[in-house]
Amino acid sequence: MDRRRLVEVAAGREKAELVFKGAEVLDVFTGRILPGDVAVEGGFIAGVGSYSGRRERDCRGLVLCPGFIDAHVHIESSMVLPREFVRSVLPSGTTTLIADPHEIVNVCGAQGLRFMLESSEGLPCNLYYMLPSSVPTSPFETAGACFTADEMRPFLGHARVLGLGEVMCFPDVVGGRGEIFEKLALLEGRPIDGHAPALSGHALQAYAAAGVESEHEAVGFAEAAEKARAGMAILVREGSAAHNVVSLVRGLVESGMETDRFLFCTDDKHLDDIWRDGHIRWNLKLAMEEGLAPALALGMASYNTARHYRLPRLGAVAPGYRADLVLLSDLRGVLVEEVYKDGIPASEALKNLGESPPPDPAVLHTVSLPALSEHDLRLPVAEKTDVIGMIPYQLETEHLRESVPQRQGYFTPGGDYAKLCVVERHGRSGNLALAPLKGYGIRGGAIATTVAHDSHNILAAADNDKDLLLAIRRLGEMGGGYVLVRGGQVIGQVPLAVAGLMSTESAEAVRSQVARISKQAHEMGIPYHIDPFISLSFLALPVIPSLRLTDRGLFDVERFALL
Amino acid sequence: MDRRRLVEVAAGREKAELVFKGAEVLDVFTGRILPGDVAVEGGFIAGVGSYSGRRERDCRGLVLCPGFIDAHVHIESSMVLPREFVRSVLPSGTTTLIADPHEIVNVCGAQGLRFMLESSEGLPCNLYYMLPSSVPTSPFETAGACFTADEMRPFLGHARVLGLGEVMCFPDVVGGRGEIFEKLALLEGRPIDGHAPALSGHALQAYAAAGVESEHEAVGFAEAAEKARAGMAILVREGSAAHNVVSLVRGLVESGMETDRFLFCTDDKHLDDIWRDGHIRWNLKLAMEEGLAPALALGMASYNTARHYRLPRLGAVAPGYRADLVLLSDLRGVLVEEVYKDGIPASEALKNLGESPPPDPAVLHTVSLPALSEHDLRLPVAEKTDVIGMIPYQLETEHLRESVPQRQGYFTPGGDYAKLCVVERHGRSGNLALAPLKGYGIRGGAIATTVAHDSHNILAAADNDKDLLLAIRRLGEMGGGYVLVRGGQVIGQVPLAVAGLMSTESAEAVRSQVARISKQAHEMGIPYHIDPFISLSFLALPVIPSLRLTDRGLFDVERFALL
Repeated sequence: MDRRRLVEVAAGREKAELVFKGAEVLDVFTGRILPGDVAVEGGFIAGVGSYSGRRERDCRGLVLCPGFIDAHVHIESSMVLPREFVRSVLPSGTTTLIADPHEIVNVCGAQGLRFMLESSEGLPCNLYYMLPSSVPTSPFETAGACFTADEMRPFLGHARVLGLGEVMCFPDVVGGRGEIFEKLALLEGRPIDGHAPALSGHALQAYAAAGVESEHEAVGFAEAAEKARAGMAILVREGSAAHNVVSLVRGLVESGMETDRFLFCTDDKHLDDIWRDGHIRWNLKLAMEEGLAPALALGMASYNTARHYRLPRLGAVAPGYRADLVLLSDLRGVLVEEVYKDGIPASEALKNLGESPPPDPAVLHTVSLPALSEHDLRLPVAEKTDVIGMIPYQLETEHLRESVPQRQGYFTPGGDYAKLCVVERHGRSGNLALAPLKGYGIRGGAIATTVAHDSHNILAAADNDKDLLLAIRRLGEMGGGYVLVRGGQVIGQVPLAVAGLMSTESAEAVRSQVARISKQAHEMGIPYHIDPFISLSFLALPVIPSLRLTDRGLFDVERFALL
Repeated sequence: MDRRRLVEVAAGREKAELVFKGAEVLDVFTGRILPGDVAVEGGFIAGVGSYSGRRERDCRGLVLCPGFIDAHVHIESSMVLPREFVRSVLPSGTTTLIADPHEIVNVCGAQGLRFMLESSEGLPCNLYYMLPSSVPTSPFETAGACFTADEMRPFLGHARVLGLGEVMCFPDVVGGRGEIFEKLALLEGRPIDGHAPALSGHALQAYAAAGVESEHEAVGFAEAAEKARAGMAILVREGSAAHNVVSLVRGLVESGMETDRFLFCTDDKHLDDIWRDGHIRWNLKLAMEEGLAPALALGMASYNTARHYRLPRLGAVAPGYRADLVLLSDLRGVLVEEVYKDGIPASEALKNLGESPPPDPAVLHTVSLPALSEHDLRLPVAEKTDVIGMIPYQLETEHLRESVPQRQGYFTPGGDYAKLCVVERHGRSGNLALAPLKGYGIRGGAIATTVAHDSHNILAAADNDKDLLLAIRRLGEMGGGYVLVRGGQVIGQVPLAVAGLMSTESAEAVRSQVARISKQAHEMGIPYHIDPFISLSFLALPVIPSLRLTDRGLFDVERFALL
């Protein structure tokens, strides 16, 4: 940034490189929208007022506002690399991402974070990272890595590393134990994100006293208000699975509470949803529909977040701020006419985007399996056995005790029951765990994925052991992804070569591959109220009730213990 | 801060050291006042809710709010050292000061800043400093030091040095010239304070584009709103000379503008006013009288400021925040019942205050005068000559052209005219300048001071040269202060041994010395609408219209040039 040059333009002594003429300019500082020209020079805003430029963009009838910021996002959930993610979100106005690379770090450790930093260099988006705080997520599963305070230290000097990512181990924090306190001390004074669904009362006070400064898991307004009073910024989330904007914004509007500590985020949002609804733009639209004043909503999508995360000169249309700008043709509809990053039209910036460099080998070939035979896939069962029961339209499961079909004491899947299998794939323990799964409905084959929160071991389901083994082995050969097997044949696959989580292909290619394989999976009997791969991927996550399967066995979430 | 211990208390597993029971607790984050207990441990707040403690303070009927923060203050204007300043402001609720040691640095350079840092160690007040940006203030006078970007560098690592103090040389900034740009670059990313009375339009945009982030000189609301839109935090000032709360807060209330970027400050406030009205407490009281919601006003006095200056864990009654607290017995009257600093009652903290260490010799003996005789004090005058005319109740002066009494071509003071004299006292140039002064009214003697903004040369006025010389010489012997001479006798003096600006005595002693000498000065004919020393001290400041006298001669502020 050439400050003197910016001053020359602001003072009117030099013509600006680009002037937005006659826009309705959002001022996030006073919550007003006022007419004016905006002069841009060298990627920064020089001034707002009356200006002329070497290039002028007629903005009559358009609202000019700061580029949108996602306060908390897991890029890996889109299954594409940062370059393709930016291509997907920038056109709808998102110019800054605060990402938590929790998934890839669970597989690859510090190498994963390094890869995410490198592969987001030079993109037309400010891409900041938080250090994943909880890798591994739990002691009841085997992750690919352990990301300790010592391993965090080398990243502290990186200009795009901001603070500590969502502190999920809230029982440890509230209990005053565990190595999380080392990490909290290491990141003291920097932003520290929270994740503590329904935490309240003394436990919430303890969590905040430990230094946690934000929360994106609040689903009701009373919960959000209590957390706000405890000093936490509230990240109002609208993602693919979690839809919190309507209830939280309704509470804000009804209570008349100050909004300056409320921000927007997506957390996890799939490509299909991004391409259909846009990204943070969608949070904004829903918020305004609930009656939130547009200027306040836009503040939640920009300046509030920049200020909370101590990002200077970001999130406002004002002198000295980055020229990350969105032109809206309709304010309340949040219809995005054009997006500028560093004063350059997004369409141009994306056209000139170079190819991604080939991924670092350290994040490839991350599937390392034990030698397996069909023999290993046998599951001995008793008269009554523990069964994971899927519930339509929910991520929660039922803990059932049932008689399942068997032969010679071994479970024989089919009918209502599939065989669920987790294989540790990081080459650490060789663990393999099995359980009957009810209500998933696969017929005549097997489905398998290396996307399985949070340790991302192989999760597979089948109605026969032969196809199950084939699906698992194919994932090993592919280095991870989605696989579908029918009658001894691989009929579909989506390679996710990077950590078994992200494709190296374009967003368009990944969308069509996923659409095709999902259609095939439904054709094999998986009901339409279940997303074949995404619903499967949560069956190993040992924090959602009631019964889960990790590589170490069945996990009872209510008792918080392995069976 | 022992985070684990704080967590134990917050979680309710350990009893708190101190609990404020049953208070009405101000929550600055949501702008609400809600009943609750507040648990304090090791100087920090552990939790808000229901707590019991080893010690409990019954707070029924009291409002508990965060300690007040002054966003911009020149401690030197009180003429006492930081220790005595804190003794004066803490009882009315101020627990944090963001001070700009502009005056002492004008006299002593980096040594002055070092002294202010050292002499504020261990006080029961968070005392932060901004680096004076404009020393010397102007090229038209001789200051004691030049504080360059290079000299600033060693202070950047100090935990209590925050950023760049008020950038007064706004014409240089707007003009894109001068070494101020080195300082702006050096302090990039840190808070940078402004000072630009009435700056507007393109010039204001340029000033903001240069990186200036705050303004305390806005006197009308339209001016404040324009500056707020340019991205500046607005410091709403109520000092001894400047009274901006009523007009700015009225504008806030009438417009309904968001208040989160508005803060409070005093800038310059004399001991008498502090002891009578309190400190930031007085800004609050006036703001509430104008109809500002108490919770918003209290936010302006606490969290808004801490956030703007990036002071973590300060300015809120919430877990993990410093236990700097104020109990109010009357919310709208801002009646301070008790103040706590780091969880310790202010009365106790002040009682246990050690003696100040003797000041560093580097800030003593700062008056170095040329050899002077009555001969040097002769002022040759023509038929019509330039006269500084004082205007009742104002700091502005008139530029008069008049015939003044004379003998043999030399001005003879008396009647309406005194002789005004500036003597360079830093041992740099030996400059001496003289001018007739109309309307000051001293009879039968001389008055002199080393407090004279911003270079703090000796400023003296008299109706005869003999007393004038005596007064100047006495200041030299004293090492600075206030002096009053009548008929060849020194009849009053206030020694200001530190830089000629601050006394080493107690606030009480200084107040009574100043009251006594001011009374004597009025008895010598200085009218009651003039403050003898303070009005005098502004006569050398070459930024207030119309005519001033610096050590280099008469300065025409309208033409911005020496005559």
